Amino acid sequence: MMTDTIEQRLTGLGVSEGIRMGKVFVYKPLKLDEIKESKAEQPDKELARLELAKAQCTLELTALIERAQQTLGEEKAAILKGQISFLNDPAFYPPMQKLIQNEQWSAETAVRRTVNQVAGLFEAMANEYMRERSADIRDVGSRLMTHLVGYQGSRLTDITAEVILVADDLTPSDTVQLDKQYVLGFVTRIGGKTSHTAILANSLGIAAVLGLGSAIERIQHGEELIINGSTGEIVLHPEKATKDAFAAQLAVEQMEQESLNAYRSLTAVTKDGFAFEMAANIGTPQEAVGLLEKGSEAIGLYRTEFLFMSASQMPSEEIQFEAYRQTAEAMQGRPVVIRTLDIGGDKALPYLQLPEELNPFLGYRAIRLCLDQKQLFLTQLRAIIRAGAYGNVKIMFPMISGVDEWRQAKALYEEARQQLISEGANVGEAIEIGIMIEIPSAALMADRLAKEVDFFSIGTNDLVQYTVAVDRMNEKVSYLYDYFHPAIIQLIKKVIDASNKHGKWVGMCGTMAGDPLAAPLLVGLGLHEWSMSPSSIQRIKQTVRKLERSACVQLTERLLDLDTPAEIRSELEAFLKLQQ
Amino acid sequence: MMTDTIEQRLTGLGVSEGIRMGKVFVYKPLKLDEIKESKAEQPDKELARLELAKAQCTLELTALIERAQQTLGEEKAAILKGQISFLNDPAFYPPMQKLIQNEQWSAETAVRRTVNQVAGLFEAMANEYMRERSADIRDVGSRLMTHLVGYQGSRLTDITAEVILVADDLTPSDTVQLDKQYVLGFVTRIGGKTSHTAILANSLGIAAVLGLGSAIERIQHGEELIINGSTGEIVLHPEKATKDAFAAQLAVEQMEQESLNAYRSLTAVTKDGFAFEMAANIGTPQEAVGLLEKGSEAIGLYRTEFLFMSASQMPSEEIQFEAYRQTAEAMQGRPVVIRTLDIGGDKALPYLQLPEELNPFLGYRAIRLCLDQKQLFLTQLRAIIRAGAYGNVKIMFPMISGVDEWRQAKALYEEARQQLISEGANVGEAIEIGIMIEIPSAALMADRLAKEVDFFSIGTNDLVQYTVAVDRMNEKVSYLYDYFHPAIIQLIKKVIDASNKHGKWVGMCGTMAGDPLAAPLLVGLGLHEWSMSPSSIQRIKQTVRKLERSACVQLTERLLDLDTPAEIRSELEAFLKLQQ
Repeated sequence: MMTDTIEQRLTGLGVSEGIRMGKVFVYKPLKLDEIKESKAEQPDKELARLELAKAQCTLELTALIERAQQTLGEEKAAILKGQISFLNDPAFYPPMQKLIQNEQWSAETAVRRTVNQVAGLFEAMANEYMRERSADIRDVGSRLMTHLVGYQGSRLTDITAEVILVADDLTPSDTVQLDKQYVLGFVTRIGGKTSHTAILANSLGIAAVLGLGSAIERIQHGEELIINGSTGEIVLHPEKATKDAFAAQLAVEQMEQESLNAYRSLTAVTKDGFAFEMAANIGTPQEAVGLLEKGSEAIGLYRTEFLFMSASQMPSEEIQFEAYRQTAEAMQGRPVVIRTLDIGGDKALPYLQLPEELNPFLGYRAIRLCLDQKQLFLTQLRAIIRAGAYGNVKIMFPMISGVDEWRQAKALYEEARQQLISEGANVGEAIEIGIMIEIPSAALMADRLAKEVDFFSIGTNDLVQYTVAVDRMNEKVSYLYDYFHPAIIQLIKKVIDASNKHGKWVGMCGTMAGDPLAAPLLVGLGLHEWSMSPSSIQRIKQTVRKLERSACVQLTERLLDLDTPAEIRSELEAFLKLQQ
Repeated sequence: MMTDTIEQRLTGLGVSEGIRMGKVFVYKPLKLDEIKESKAEQPDKELARLELAKAQCTLELTALIERAQQTLGEEKAAILKGQISFLNDPAFYPPMQKLIQNEQWSAETAVRRTVNQVAGLFEAMANEYMRERSADIRDVGSRLMTHLVGYQGSRLTDITAEVILVADDLTPSDTVQLDKQYVLGFVTRIGGKTSHTAILANSLGIAAVLGLGSAIERIQHGEELIINGSTGEIVLHPEKATKDAFAAQLAVEQMEQESLNAYRSLTAVTKDGFAFEMAANIGTPQEAVGLLEKGSEAIGLYRTEFLFMSASQMPSEEIQFEAYRQTAEAMQGRPVVIRTLDIGGDKALPYLQLPEELNPFLGYRAIRLCLDQKQLFLTQLRAIIRAGAYGNVKIMFPMISGVDEWRQAKALYEEARQQLISEGANVGEAIEIGIMIEIPSAALMADRLAKEVDFFSIGTNDLVQYTVAVDRMNEKVSYLYDYFHPAIIQLIKKVIDASNKHGKWVGMCGTMAGDPLAAPLLVGLGLHEWSMSPSSIQRIKQTVRKLERSACVQLTERLLDLDTPAEIRSELEAFLKLQQ
């Protein structure tokens, strides 16, 4: 028999590189309604249990408040203080006691019923601030329940030291709650190479191993863990020798990273003198700070949805304008491609009622939602246009499926611009307007669309998903998800050729742009702008600088004749090995 | 104020033509767990309520058994008799009484708890027959609860007279339970033009109006209703004048149908002498009977999943062989294209554990499932190959995304064939093997695939869904679903051109093939085999016989230059109006 503390190795999907060692923090939110209702034979015992749980909660919250004041700021501390006051509210604790005394319910049932009732009252209120308090009530209720049932899971707000976060999945709203400074790495049960969590981890430079499946249950809270975000390897209960080996590997990785830093001031130019623009994908204005120094030449994708997801209500035009302006200014005249709201699908907004959908990836999202909710869209367009006066801003529409949608979106841009001009606002010069190519029909229509748009950006993540009909998050079929599928390469070529024919520029902002293995192909196809996680840029520069464009063009001709992703990958690997 | 019985008109999506008038049968299954748990102050009253509900149940079941014996046969009657015996079982009714007497639960809670407990016991049993009984227990429990709460919804098995079925949605397993002879029409809250329910209604020739949304709540059980499956119009509480007008319209429709019957013995040949094969889509061997007399020249799509969905366990090779052989024989040497199991997505099997998926349409289904569950697939391939000795059988693989999957599936076909040969089975001649083109990557790879397959069949329903990234069932975005999207026409042309280049034949088995508006385009593109609902074939023959292929080729050239689905539709409408 293996003991519980013997070294064990697990393998998941390495989606964001980095070797990290740290203590496990298991995030498993307790759902109140999962606790079955029950009666209790000894009400006195239940009252005592409830009292104890309340005391434990107060103690815990007090400690968290203290730490929060030191590390997270007064705002987070105030939320936790509010939770203590709920615990002592006459509308909260006494009704629980009554349910136990008068109706013989268990303490758990008393908590569940009271929390649901009180939170329900708040949720029904017209005042938005009061409505939001229902989340705090549910949070403190869940904290109380946690102590009652001796539950080991925890809340993200409890993270106040460096940890490796282990969870079934992280939703976008979970990830915006995180204090990123404390999270060394992510480990999740579900999620694929291009899931939201993977993209976030990449963007923040957090090591991540996803899709561990049921093996994740072997990882316990508080244990020591090593993860390798490149290989997907995880070591549980590492022995001394293992720790030493990982430390050595970490040292090598750091050296590599330092040597890559030499590329910060260099451009991505082939040996025969063809240069490609290296741009960054970002999600917040903070990420734009210092980008130029770190070697990014532009922002090829500013995902505005993070601004919306981290807010508790729809961000006003002013709030959006500030974020976009800051980003534009940080880039000092270099291009900033702002993508309009790409919400829906796996990304929800708490303050926007979205329909439950059977297949959200094929549903009401992105431009479809924006064309339907015109006021929301116009507000965003106005904010972006105004920010255009402070830098080299471009607008990009996501999820365009054909000419109709493009024309409708463009017309709304014109409407927003006319509004601003008639209001006498500072709108700067005309802005370039482009579209994402991420739906197969748009790629197929590239030749028509190229006549009308200013630029394209190919979103390989969704494009592969739809072209091959594979949900990249679904572990049962994610083996089919591969941007080296010959059909994808055909579509990319079609889009680039159409752009060149009509004198427009074309970028790529999917994961493929940051994959060195794809570089010879993208050089061969003549992709103009490559946008990726900032942490990938130096490596791509390094790769491109080893290539000859003429050889890449010949290689690409050969690749276009191959039948399977595996053949294409192996040809690319062989080609890259031959480069100096 | 409007009274409840004044004539009202509602509009949904007309998805399966036919004007029908009849009494409403509202199908709204009662879910036991939706009834909240509650305590009762007067246990004696609860006992009396339970007793009354049991008596009402017994009375109802007795009446149903009598009708079932007359109309549905002994098998259905036996199921209902089994329900009466459960009502009187000592493990069923007495525990309910005890819960009320000893623990003061309400009658509803007593029913819910007992049913869940007893059904749970059955579900845990190893014996499959016993496991299946749990469904009967839940059914009788739901019937009991129905009477307790005075619930108006009903069960599908209660339909024993002609009705118009009104439901939120019909699942494939609901529809196989239906006694189709009694269902004049369907009306549903959700579902689009190419949902499973629409396809089924078309295939069975049942008029259907889907996607009515919340307006469906105005329709009450037992009311008189008129539906028009072509226009999507619904009339509630029709006045005498309305009924007369609909009767007149019905008479016209019948006359049209009769005039179309003249085309049964004619072929779909253009004025300039180009003939196209008119094939039928079917779901059961029964539908193949009489097809040739009714003017179908082949079966272009035999959906084998209905055989699997209507069974309570995986159909054996023998059961499958019989179904395929009967179908092959009914077609007397004419082609029968049998599609291998296309399960998953919106089609589940009760006896096959499938994962819960966030985006089932992009998930584990069809050939992906079959390549993973090889034994299931080999069994089906063996049954089809054996049936090949009794007719002109062809095999078609669904959801092929590229060359790899095709080769794997083909290899399994070879394996099944070798198995049968080494067993000395009668396997007939070599069978043609083809693939569905319904994933964009397969359409894009048509030129490579055409070298290896014997034929293609374009599945426009899924092809549009993936190419435009739209779930056709999702009302919020179904406006984007259109097979006249220029990108779709490009893909269809690409597939047909690739087939012609390699000397292979190509069919289409999506809804588009049965749409007269598409006929000039499909003639122009040179589609070889058109497979559709048998009820559409005469109208398509009528349309094709009015066309000149040369004019259609010129038209198609023009259509290929248009930018939007609306432009293409209006050009086609104008063209068709000019034909005699």
